[in-house]
Order: sequence, then structure tokens, then C-alpha cells
Amino acid sequence: MDRYYAGVDIGGTTVKLGMFSHTGELMEKWEIPTRIEGEGENILPDVAASIEERRAEKGGNIMGIGIGAPGPVTDDGVVLKCSNIHWPVLDVRGKLSKLTGIAKVKVGNDANVAALGEMWKGGGRGFDSIVMITLGTGVGGGVIVGGKILTGAMGAGGEIGHMKIRLDETEPCGCGAKGCLEQYVSAKGIVRMAKAEMRRDSVLSKITDLTAKDVFDAAKEDDEYALSIVDQFARYLGTALANVAHVLDPEAFVIGGGISRAGDIIIKKVEKYYNDNVLYALKDKEFRLAQLGNDAGIYGAVRMVL
Amino acid sequence: MDRYYAGVDIGGTTVKLGMFSHTGELMEKWEIPTRIEGEGENILPDVAASIEERRAEKGGNIMGIGIGAPGPVTDDGVVLKCSNIHWPVLDVRGKLSKLTGIAKVKVGNDANVAALGEMWKGGGRGFDSIVMITLGTGVGGGVIVGGKILTGAMGAGGEIGHMKIRLDETEPCGCGAKGCLEQYVSAKGIVRMAKAEMRRDSVLSKITDLTAKDVFDAAKEDDEYALSIVDQFARYLGTALANVAHVLDPEAFVIGGGISRAGDIIIKKVEKYYNDNVLYALKDKEFRLAQLGNDAGIYGAVRMVL
Repeated sequence: MDRYYAGVDIGGTTVKLGMFSHTGELMEKWEIPTRIEGEGENILPDVAASIEERRAEKGGNIMGIGIGAPGPVTDDGVVLKCSNIHWPVLDVRGKLSKLTGIAKVKVGNDANVAALGEMWKGGGRGFDSIVMITLGTGVGGGVIVGGKILTGAMGAGGEIGHMKIRLDETEPCGCGAKGCLEQYVSAKGIVRMAKAEMRRDSVLSKITDLTAKDVFDAAKEDDEYALSIVDQFARYLGTALANVAHVLDPEAFVIGGGISRAGDIIIKKVEKYYNDNVLYALKDKEFRLAQLGNDAGIYGAVRMVL
Repeated sequence: MDRYYAGVDIGGTTVKLGMFSHTGELMEKWEIPTRIEGEGENILPDVAASIEERRAEKGGNIMGIGIGAPGPVTDDGVVLKCSNIHWPVLDVRGKLSKLTGIAKVKVGNDANVAALGEMWKGGGRGFDSIVMITLGTGVGGGVIVGGKILTGAMGAGGEIGHMKIRLDETEPCGCGAKGCLEQYVSAKGIVRMAKAEMRRDSVLSKITDLTAKDVFDAAKEDDEYALSIVDQFARYLGTALANVAHVLDPEAFVIGGGISRAGDIIIKKVEKYYNDNVLYALKDKEFRLAQLGNDAGIYGAVRMVL
């Protein structure tokens, strides 16, 4: 009888699922919609039913389920609140275990779980202490120490996007504070910086609906203003990661999310500002691009139960 | 036959030693000079001889030795360099074990070890994930996660004093970078801030050889200028600890070192700025003063082997 393991990554719109062999090979992946009506009470039953359906097609047994959720999660698998999927405080481990009859269920915060996935099969391969930062609409982070997710007392470890990087910022971040890293290195933050002091001689000034990708593309074409924005971006991110290193001293940093598709230009510049701002013992860490894209979550989730 | 455990804290001038019962009670403590001549090659033999001398007086056996050293230490007890006691890269665990014939020797960075001591028997009692910050001439830090020291890949975890807090600083820190936390919250940093914009109507303007203690004393007497300096100090420290919390999400912060003798005024103000700058899930952490003073090191050291 074959033995399988399921990895689940719950997002605001879709739930990503993967079925893995007991050696950790991804055998198939699929998605289902995230039904957030009410208190999101359909989500876990939908997950359980979808996994059982695939299992029944294949035959065999599911030996464990790992699951990433978009909110703070305690070490014993209780989600403390996920506002974007309407979950209240919820014992996800207990509930999913009951729904599926599978004893081995583990739950983690989605950003932390993605970091674990990248360490296992992606940009962080070969290391066992990494910090992953995900640069998308917002900025997420995940911390792995000694091969394990650093959860934190309130499940809020790795919230690197809300480290304060500028004390003199006057505009508020979405979180209410001012000067958070997210205000400078998220997609939205990069566009905000580019618009703030736009120069007429830059190609960026001709673009309506400017995106972060436009900024990086123009920088690659040597547009001076775009290069200066990328430089600011790298300065904030490199300095923030230096601050993280002074706390954690990881082996490597993995940079993911939509922005990271800009590629090596990011690594090179961020590395420079990082090295300018760390103690000698912390210099020359490895900087890597994430490799698993949207699959990092299901990989990391299943890694928790393998 | 009685069983004892020794805790050792190596400083630049003296080595502090403590003999503990197997239940962790401090039975006696003493000091010897740190002989740093050459490559500091006398230090470990001196430690071994001093421990053996005390053991011989008492009778009984030493079951383990824990030791804190002022530099980066790897998980397997190798000190990567301690410039102030002239040590090169040194296998302290192996060497002390050979000198004493005791198999159980553990080594940690002194600031991390002090944090462990405070968690065990001092200001951090009752928690198992804390961040300790030591405000003295410089600023040290130690991180404990799940009851264990977070060492870091290069033994440089917890170097909180060199997190960058101001991007616009023009004066360099001792480490070479600019804008390190240490430049604002160490004894030297506080005096520097107070001197920078000294006001004639402050009692501080009449003091030659101004100290950080003077600043806190004047603040307690409601000297307006001194209060504004304490407020700046608290803003930098509270913001830096908020940044640490976004990475680690500890249960509590313990503030130690000479500056912490100013007492509750520090806790109250730092807590305020901390809460102003963290995500909701991280608010209202515990802030405690360190309680063990110079004994934190020997307590933490012995804790590693108990």
C-alpha cells in the first residue's frame, strides 16, 4: 500500500495542495477556491474532502498533512486569527485531524512554511539556518534556525516587513506605524518612492500605472533615475537584513516574491549594502533568489510532517 | 561523594568563577586575574588550577564546567577570536576538558550566557524565550529561544548593539559603521547625546566629566533637558527592541548592565516606544530589569552543563 503526504497552503483566494511521496517527491499539485464566507468554516472541510478525493483515486494512505495559514500560528497548531480568511482563533491541527482521521497534522504560518520549503528544495538548499524575505504587494518573512521554523511566542516570528527602518518617515504603513521596511521594498513601496521625486528625463515619467517591474526594467536599461530608486530599495533592504543578522546570524538569506523576479540586480546591490552595515563576523553571508515560486508553501508544509 | 558544577565567566580583567551544587545553588564564588599576556595562553590553565584548588578543599567531584567567553563561540565550543583577551581561534571546550579531565565542558558567548543566567535565576525567570540587552560602556545582547542560547552560524547571534537605528548618522561607531544602537544607548552614547546640544538651563551643563548616571539622576529630578535625553535614549532602544521582536517574537525583554541601575524610569519609557512601534500581535511583552548583576555570567555558564 502506497504512503502519501499532503502539503496545503491556504491563501486568501485559493488553497494550493500537493501530494508527495514518502521520499518527498511532489507527485501532483492542484488548487481549490478558498471559501471565506462566515468565519471561513468551510475551508478545512473543503481541504479534507479534496485530499480524500485524490487519495481515493490513487489508492494508498495519507500518513500526514502539513498546512500553512496566513496568520500567526502557535507551536501546537492553533491559528491566532487570520483576518483575510475570516478565521477566529482556531485549533487547525485538532480540527483537520478530526476531519481526516489523520493523527499527524502540523500547522505553520505561511511565510515561515514557505521559508522551510525554500530551505528544503529551493534557494536555501544546503543550509539549515536561513531568513527568507518575500517581496510582493506586502513584505513577509520566515526564519529557520537549525532546520526548524522559529515560531515566536505569539506566532509572530519573522515579521520582518514591519521592522522600522526610517525614524523620520511621515507617511503611515498599512499597520499603523511609520517607517516600516514594507513602505520601501514592497511593490507598492518601490512605486511610491519612484513617484515621490520623479524626474522628467527618466523613462519612468512616461509610464502611466507605474509598476515595480517597470522600475527594475528601466534600471537594467541604465535609466539613471530608475537606478537611483533601485539603489534606495537595496539600501533599505540591505540595512534591514543586516539588522536581522545582528540578531540571528543565519547562514543565508533567500529573497522571494514577485519583486525577486528582477533577478541578480537585487542580490548584487542588497549584498553590498548588507556588507557595508554588518560586523566583521557577519560579513559575506550567502544571498540567494527563491526558486520554488508559489510552490514553496506546499513544499514547506509537507516538510513539517515528513 | 558530593558532586559540584563550576560556572566560569571570562572578562578582560578578571575571571569570575562559581561553584554550584547539583541542584544549581551557588555555594561560593571568587575571582582570579585574567592573564592576557601572549595569546592569552595562561587563562585556561589558570581556570583549571583554580577550580581544582577549590574542589580539593571541599572534596567531592566536579561533574561539569560551563564557561562564557567575550567573543563569538560556535555551537561546538570553539571561540572564533577574542581580541580583548588575545585569544586566536581556540577550541576552548577541548582544551579545558583536557586540562581538567572533565568531559562535560560547554562554552558560550558571554552576553548569551548572561542572558541564560538571567532567564534561569534572574529577571527572566518564568520565561523560556527572552532577549537580554546589556547597557554598559558598550551594548551587548543575548538571545534565548525555547530555553536555549541562539548561537548563530558564526557565533554572532544577539549582537543587538550594532543594529543600525539611524541611517543619517555621520559619526562612526567603534565597529566602523554609522548609526549603530550602541551610539545612542550605551553609557558613552548617552553622554554624547547629552553633550551634543547641551542647554545652559540644565543642571547637566554644570557637571564636568558628565556620566550617564548624571543624566538619569537629573531626569528623576525633572530636569527638562535630561528628560529629553532619556526620552531619546528610550526611543532608540524601544524602537530597536521592536525591530528585534519583529524577527524573534520573544516572551520578554531583560535589560541589564550599569545603565539599568537607573531602574523603572527605563522600563516605563522603553516600553512605551516599543509598543508604539510593533505589530498588534507583538504588543505588551514583558520588560524586566536584570537581577543578577555580575553574577549572571557564572549562573548562565553553569546552566549550560546542569
